[in-house]
Amino acid sequence: MTAAVRYPVPELKDLPEDIRAKVLEVQEKAGFVPNVFLAFARRPAEWRAFFAYHDALMAPETVGRESGLTKGDREMIVTATSAANNCLYCVVAHGAILRIYEKKPLVADQVAVNWRKADITPRQHAMLEFAMKVCLHSDEIAEEDFAPLHAQGFDDEDIWDIAAITAFFGLSNRMASFAGMQPNPEFYLMGRVPRQK
Amino acid sequence: MTAAVRYPVPELKDLPEDIRAKVLEVQEKAGFVPNVFLAFARRPAEWRAFFAYHDALMAPETVGRESGLTKGDREMIVTATSAANNCLYCVVAHGAILRIYEKKPLVADQVAVNWRKADITPRQHAMLEFAMKVCLHSDEIAEEDFAPLHAQGFDDEDIWDIAAITAFFGLSNRMASFAGMQPNPEFYLMGRVPRQK
Amino acid sequence: MTAAVRYPVPELKDLPEDIRAKVLEVQEKAGFVPNVFLAFARRPAEWRAFFAYHDALMAPETVGRESGLTKGDREMIVTATSAANNCLYCVVAHGAILRIYEKKPLVADQVAVNWRKADITPRQHAMLEFAMKVCLHSDEIAEEDFAPLHAQGFDDEDIWDIAAITAFFGLSNRMASFAGMQPNPEFYLMGRVPRQK
Amino acid sequence: MTAAVRYPVPELKDLPEDIRAKVLEVQEKAGFVPNVFLAFARRPAEWRAFFAYHDALMAPETVGRESGLTKGDREMIVTATSAANNCLYCVVAHGAILRIYEKKPLVADQVAVNWRKADITPRQHAMLEFAMKVCLHSDEIAEEDFAPLHAQGFDDEDIWDIAAITAFFGLSNRMASFAGMQPNPEFYLMGRVPRQK
Amino acid sequence: MTAAVRYPVPELKDLPEDIRAKVLEVQEKAGFVPNVFLAFARRPAEWRAFFAYHDALMAPETVGRESGLTKGDREMIVTATSAANNCLYCVVAHGAILRIYEKKPLVADQVAVNWRKADITPRQHAMLEFAMKVCLHSDEIAEEDFAPLHAQGFDDEDIWDIAAITAFFGLSNRMASFAGMQPNPEFYLMGRVPRQK
Amino acid sequence: MTAAVRYPVPELKDLPEDIRAKVLEVQEKAGFVPNVFLAFARRPAEWRAFFAYHDALMAPETVGRESGLTKGDREMIVTATSAANNCLYCVVAHGAILRIYEKKPLVADQVAVNWRKADITPRQHAMLEFAMKVCLHSDEIAEEDFAPLHAQGFDDEDIWDIAAITAFFGLSNRMASFAGMQPNPEFYLMGRVPRQK
Repeated sequence: MTAAVRYPVPELKDLPEDIRAKVLEVQEKAGFVPNVFLAFARRPAEWRAFFAYHDALMAPETVGRESGLTKGDREMIVTATSAANNCLYCVVAHGAILRIYEKKPLVADQVAVNWRKADITPRQHAMLEFAMKVCLHSDEIAEEDFAPLHAQGFDDEDIWDIAAITAFFGLSNRMASFAGMQPNPEFYLMGRVPRQK
Repeated sequence: MTAAVRYPVPELKDLPEDIRAKVLEVQEKAGFVPNVFLAFARRPAEWRAFFAYHDALMAPETVGRESGLTKGDREMIVTATSAANNCLYCVVAHGAILRIYEKKPLVADQVAVNWRKADITPRQHAMLEFAMKVCLHSDEIAEEDFAPLHAQGFDDEDIWDIAAITAFFGLSNRMASFAGMQPNPEFYLMGRVPRQK
Repeated sequence: MTAAVRYPVPELKDLPEDIRAKVLEVQEKAGFVPNVFLAFARRPAEWRAFFAYHDALMAPETVGRESGLTKGDREMIVTATSAANNCLYCVVAHGAILRIYEKKPLVADQVAVNWRKADITPRQHAMLEFAMKVCLHSDEIAEEDFAPLHAQGFDDEDIWDIAAITAFFGLSNRMASFAGMQPNPEFYLMGRVPRQK
Repeated sequence: MTAAVRYPVPELKDLPEDIRAKVLEVQEKAGFVPNVFLAFARRPAEWRAFFAYHDALMAPETVGRESGLTKGDREMIVTATSAANNCLYCVVAHGAILRIYEKKPLVADQVAVNWRKADITPRQHAMLEFAMKVCLHSDEIAEEDFAPLHAQGFDDEDIWDIAAITAFFGLSNRMASFAGMQPNPEFYLMGRVPRQK
Repeated sequence: MTAAVRYPVPELKDLPEDIRAKVLEVQEKAGFVPNVFLAFARRPAEWRAFFAYHDALMAPETVGRESGLTKGDREMIVTATSAANNCLYCVVAHGAILRIYEKKPLVADQVAVNWRKADITPRQHAMLEFAMKVCLHSDEIAEEDFAPLHAQGFDDEDIWDIAAITAFFGLSNRMASFAGMQPNPEFYLMGRVPRQK
Repeated sequence: MTAAVRYPVPELKDLPEDIRAKVLEVQEKAGFVPNVFLAFARRPAEWRAFFAYHDALMAPETVGRESGLTKGDREMIVTATSAANNCLYCVVAHGAILRIYEKKPLVADQVAVNWRKADITPRQHAMLEFAMKVCLHSDEIAEEDFAPLHAQGFDDEDIWDIAAITAFFGLSNRMASFAGMQPNPEFYLMGRVPRQK
């Protein structure tokens, strides 16, 4: 079995109180602790900044902000970005969440392999096209790249969201790949099988 | 729902007898007809050549040949190649078969996202490294590329297999992407959930 | 002298009857046996599939199909594809055939070095532009790529031909480069000197 | 004059108290407010996470951590990363700080144009080589990439620092380029002229 | 201190008379001898051809030709080209001259890091876009690339100037990088500080 | 028929005396005027610098210099460089001269399509490997790139020759491609057919 990460992982009991509380909360909700929560915990200050940034972008309601992007949109950007960066942890973990939010068991694999052929809306297609330019050619972004997004109903704040999510997960992808972070096995199957009553 | 393919798909009843027989055989075995079988059937001569080539490489026993590659090795090469070419159909369809042959529910996603981080053997790692060079830089293949494979126990015929599978699915990937071929929904879940008795 | 290919080449007398017959037929017609015919013959099943596929695309009349591409068009696609893949065997061998079919002694070198500057028709220019996208970025092919071809009089079946020829020779290029296949010396000069009576 | 950033910039008086305090502190210290402090302030939660992350990596002593990287090392990584991403704001702003920390008026331009030709130590050369791999090919990082750094005296925590700084400024670069953030004119000259008494 | 160049540098007294005269003239004018003048002088015939070519393009008035490009335009092309080729010597040396001719202390760093974000005119933007295509994809230049330049008032001779300057400094960049040529320290600061009376 | 070049070509009678003399000399020797001689002649100062540079590198004996490269070596570098830059004029024209100097009718096509598979010596292989790095990644050239050339008997001056020829023809390639310069038909066949007595 491949280790969860190349670097030492602290034990739950050794974590600062605020971090342990968050980890336990996630565990409660998800049924397991996603490896990223422990892989980064060796360095509490980075951990806190990482998850504060994550939440500000991925759960804007927690900071009192509304966004024109749905939860599914956001996870779709993360999945496409992580695929472009070939980040195993993030494609598998966020692909799982994407399936759940979009209620589409097939969409994550489609977006990860070739978003151009995915069964998504034209609005999401424009969103991913812009995200990919931020991901791969940010120096070439120009005013004319905003027009197709405006045409799909995104305003400038939504576009900032698209760019910021792409940029933030570019950071996350590099750290996860560098550190050899492995996705928890649970993620691979989440959202693939429709829930039965 | 996205169509299975951009081009017209013939009806089963209109197919030449040999092709219809093969399609029915696959349907019997898999429980459904993989889209590639119908997407190519509009052109019977290409269909026959494509599947004859496929079988010669992927089922060498059907042509009386033994191979040093296992069935899982072969599907692993297909999955890595198809991911390098961003081919949705082939990653999803052959990833499914890879999971089944390797009896590893997680391996296909790992190989598709970043084969370097996949839970595979050093022998398979060397195999994929060579396959990726054939896929992406075949003009640079030189004698020194054979040594790491020999060191892992592959002989020259096995190496031909690796190259030929990579090259053949490069063809398949380009046709599937060009024609907008969609994987059957069944593939996405195959091999992910351990069979219960 | 560089060997014809890195792998062992069977003797004509050891070939299966159908393959030997085809090899002799080609020799009769061309005056020599192109190396590809022997380089692949070690593996009869692959040989048969390869040439069946080749003929289905390059000689569609042999399978009772008409194509909107001329023989010259087809060889032009092969030459451009093989140049993009830096495949020595295929550029030299198919460049020779291109010169003959197009009756233009200069066109093969032009297409191989920079097809954009070749002395070809606007229709052929559009054809090669599409072929190069299939060759290099097949995952990005979209519906809008078909329009310039329709505008030049190609229908969807012709476009399938362009894509399939490109994809098939991508396979051929990878095998020839991987195996170090050398073009027969005869090819280099064929079609360069106008026939005298 | 090019605007400081494409997006609206809040006035100092409208900022949350903690952000305003930090901005004033920076202004006091630097003599001007670097544009990034105001360009991100429209979104306080992102602002706080961004600068908390920044400080955890670039001023580890503020979070009670020691690092094997000097301040100059860190700014050198930022400058090289930002140059690889063609980020105008970060190359100019962090190049200025690099000149000051390293007390080398020429080093920033050298690192930005071609770090391989810069007048830096072999240890810094190894550091930048790893940083560039994290920046451009993070999916290919493998265990063997750690050895040259260990050989130069970096331990695994230092290597985490190199990777994290590279990854964080990859985020910063993408946001600054996307948002058209312009460096303050003051940065261009800082550290170029030796201070006179 | 890094050496000025990897190859031996002749002494002034050993140079042929015409070369020594030119070197002394440059020294008189600039206050120092730019390293390129000595680094190339080991080979007088190449030296003479290099500077004759340089002057024909960069100082057309010396050969009795007028150009639609200003001196600043020309140095801007050199700076952008040299940045695209990551040539330390040329970015630093010609960036200095660019600052002086354009009377803009910030413009050279902007053009070197990301010309798309530089504070330049739309005419200069079109000029650099064409120069970058000549620099990076000259084989793809087509008639339609001339139209945006004509629209900005450049005629065909001006466009030849843009291409020729780009091509010539591509040569210069390769030689300077190959030979490890270092810019004189004086260049780094030139044109950054407004002259006082 | 494609025009020789996109720009106006002066008539022989309108050329400056020295240029006309050289053109007539070449015509006398070759039996035709290579298009480059007229395509550049519109600008005499550039013409003179271009051919002075050319001769200093390609005919060093004319400037009293000896070189460790044979005439065939030099044309081989030009052919490989021009192929890497997809320059139709230079591949065809210099490939012709390469065939003649090396007395190998096949070598030019081999070097142009894939120099790694060409029938050349190990010394020439090392020479082209270095030339390709100068051509494509000059910023990455480092001291360790010189060792394989020293091992093949090249000294530092020979290596300067390799780099300079590569750099000079990078200039030539960009100008020829930009200006749409077409090779004279005569070049295509030169050196392909052994001379008969």
